[in-house]
Amino acid sequence: MADCRKSVPKVVAQAAKAEGIRPEKLARSIASGRAVLPFNEIHSPKPLAIGEGTRVKVNVNIGTSADYVDLKEELGKARAAVKYGADAIMDLSTGGDIGKIRRAILKEVRVPVGTVPIYQAGMEKARRSAVVDMTEDDIFNAIVAHAKDGVDFVTVHCGVTRESVDALKRSKRITDVVSRGGAFLVAWILRNGEENPLYSNYDYLLEIAKEYDLTLSLGDGMRPGCIADATDEPQVQELITLGECVQRARKAGVQAMVEGPGHVPLHQIVANVQLEKTICDEAPFYVLGPLVTDIAPGYDHITGAIGGALAALAGADFLCYVTPAEHLCLPSIDDVRDGTIASVIAAHAADVARGIGADRDMDMARARKALDWEGQFRSAIDPDTARARHERRGSSDGDVCSMCGDLCAIKMVSDALGGGKKPASRPRKR
Amino acid sequence: MADCRKSVPKVVAQAAKAEGIRPEKLARSIASGRAVLPFNEIHSPKPLAIGEGTRVKVNVNIGTSADYVDLKEELGKARAAVKYGADAIMDLSTGGDIGKIRRAILKEVRVPVGTVPIYQAGMEKARRSAVVDMTEDDIFNAIVAHAKDGVDFVTVHCGVTRESVDALKRSKRITDVVSRGGAFLVAWILRNGEENPLYSNYDYLLEIAKEYDLTLSLGDGMRPGCIADATDEPQVQELITLGECVQRARKAGVQAMVEGPGHVPLHQIVANVQLEKTICDEAPFYVLGPLVTDIAPGYDHITGAIGGALAALAGADFLCYVTPAEHLCLPSIDDVRDGTIASVIAAHAADVARGIGADRDMDMARARKALDWEGQFRSAIDPDTARARHERRGSSDGDVCSMCGDLCAIKMVSDALGGGKKPASRPRKR
Repeated sequence: MADCRKSVPKVVAQAAKAEGIRPEKLARSIASGRAVLPFNEIHSPKPLAIGEGTRVKVNVNIGTSADYVDLKEELGKARAAVKYGADAIMDLSTGGDIGKIRRAILKEVRVPVGTVPIYQAGMEKARRSAVVDMTEDDIFNAIVAHAKDGVDFVTVHCGVTRESVDALKRSKRITDVVSRGGAFLVAWILRNGEENPLYSNYDYLLEIAKEYDLTLSLGDGMRPGCIADATDEPQVQELITLGECVQRARKAGVQAMVEGPGHVPLHQIVANVQLEKTICDEAPFYVLGPLVTDIAPGYDHITGAIGGALAALAGADFLCYVTPAEHLCLPSIDDVRDGTIASVIAAHAADVARGIGADRDMDMARARKALDWEGQFRSAIDPDTARARHERRGSSDGDVCSMCGDLCAIKMVSDALGGGKKPASRPRKR
Repeated sequence: MADCRKSVPKVVAQAAKAEGIRPEKLARSIASGRAVLPFNEIHSPKPLAIGEGTRVKVNVNIGTSADYVDLKEELGKARAAVKYGADAIMDLSTGGDIGKIRRAILKEVRVPVGTVPIYQAGMEKARRSAVVDMTEDDIFNAIVAHAKDGVDFVTVHCGVTRESVDALKRSKRITDVVSRGGAFLVAWILRNGEENPLYSNYDYLLEIAKEYDLTLSLGDGMRPGCIADATDEPQVQELITLGECVQRARKAGVQAMVEGPGHVPLHQIVANVQLEKTICDEAPFYVLGPLVTDIAPGYDHITGAIGGALAALAGADFLCYVTPAEHLCLPSIDDVRDGTIASVIAAHAADVARGIGADRDMDMARARKALDWEGQFRSAIDPDTARARHERRGSSDGDVCSMCGDLCAIKMVSDALGGGKKPASRPRKR
């Protein structure tokens, strides 16, 4: 939002309206850095606020890999994500014509789009020599190129510093580094013996962000890759650096949020959210999962939904989805749908607990009580799947389902209570 | 466990061994009623303890409905449940030859089997006239018949009393009663104007339980059927009655656990567990889900896994799974598998947080670091699905996956660190 005088009030008002909150309140949260509104005028997405006072948001990662490049499939993933409730999309493409794919995705969706520019810088260098041969210019030029295409937010791993690499070397980590961008920079630092340009030239990065309306998503290159590595020295060391980056961004008038883990056991999730909120002074917290166990490949959308719900309940603002393909392969369109829905469930469950959005649950409850199947499908996150399942096994009696048939509890009790109870409705409650 | 002198020590020792805990410790928990060991000598399942000091257990409901009766399919569900990690199975059949189906399931599986005898009493009466025409004898005869077949635990809705029906009438509940057994009894009380025989003749029930080695699972007929109804007067009124039933069971030397909700918003789950633990004096808590939102039909195994993980972290002992078919239709074998795995993930995540079972996560983490795919599949909850996904999209490079290809973070950092870091291994930690 380069031109604050002109565009901010309007997009903030639109974002506030979508949340059902007062624009002034949201404007204050954004001004203080406790909320962000990723909005690049070149893309001009539907205004979306992330952070204090707003509902929990869901991001969906898509993108090609070196082995699978199919633009049509990626656009299909983008559409599926938006259809099932994604609030934002990140294009993590590393295969094919990365710029062309990014521009096609930006054209396809009206939700904010994020990228990780260092992927392109590293990948294009890797095609000719090696990732570690990237220059500072390659990195910053990639960021500018993404900004000029209209990207709304970028992940920048500014906290992967020589200090955190030293912490990594000292650590007893099992999986070391599992962040791809983090790995690029760890390898780069070790090879070149120099500081991470995203940190040593952070002021220059802030200038670019300011000039091109880029919201920074401060990446956690040191995020744990297994639950045993969670909340350890490299992770917390990096978080402290990210807290410093948040303050410098705020001083420069640049919007910043902070990325978080990763693999975190259930009992450490609340602590992780609280740590970020204190160290990063309430900057919006954008978590990947967290995955609460390592042993469920094929079902990591579920482990991520468990962790995401608890993280959001504790104050996380933005959930990056995880698909059933995590740790195994590049996701398909179906995987994107399943991952999106799992994260939307987690975000909504936390919202309801925080007092937001339970109207839809009330509508569903009333439709269930009335045995109104169309009403139930209307209130469902995925009406088509709900309908297909219900119709897969029809019941001999039209108004009940094949689970209980005529022994439907709701039907029996409605009949038994008869007129003895007032109609099922009441004011909305938490 | 009618003959304490003979069988208890042996089965307790076996159950303790399976948990990796001292037999004396488990025996104390069982003696105090803070753990149960459902074990009917006629069935003689693999001894399984539920409650204090043991890992979180998962129950899988199977069974026919009036519209779908296929014994072969039900046995397939039982096998799938056990294969994917179910600790116990409940046969909730209401269609076909209910006794024959129950006996076939008891013969098929070596995990403890539970039933809800009132389903059979009610269903058989419904075929001739109506559920509400059940007599007291019908109800108790069904319980004895199930016990004589070897059923290890039975759900008995002793807390659905005239008092709780009055609370229901006064309440502003949306979905009233969604428990099938609860609905039978509410309808029965309203029709016959008498007290629930399972409460008025609870001493007789305790005699039967004592005689036939039956563990009681005190059912929550008043459990909320939508998140707006959670933790309300009918639910808590019933819980107080169940607390009384727990005390009377303990005095009679009968094992008892307590069933819980249901639909519960995320922020009320911890309170629900704490309520049960105080009111029911630390009796094992057996929760259904809980489902943290109402709007995800088709994905309720995920909403249930979120609630179950948090409930178990807060102290719930036994998770009843929920399948993707919940609220829609009778589950298929695939639904049973998906539901089982989701609950196993939730239970395991809570166990790890409570200091149990993280070795398997460590094995997975080490296999990931070593890019050892066979090792990863071995440590996975569902090796077949993990393998199939990984192979669905092969990578051009054999040791990485199609997500990142050669840009694999683990591979890059291993190469970059070279010999500069000690091998990835360390003592087990929480």
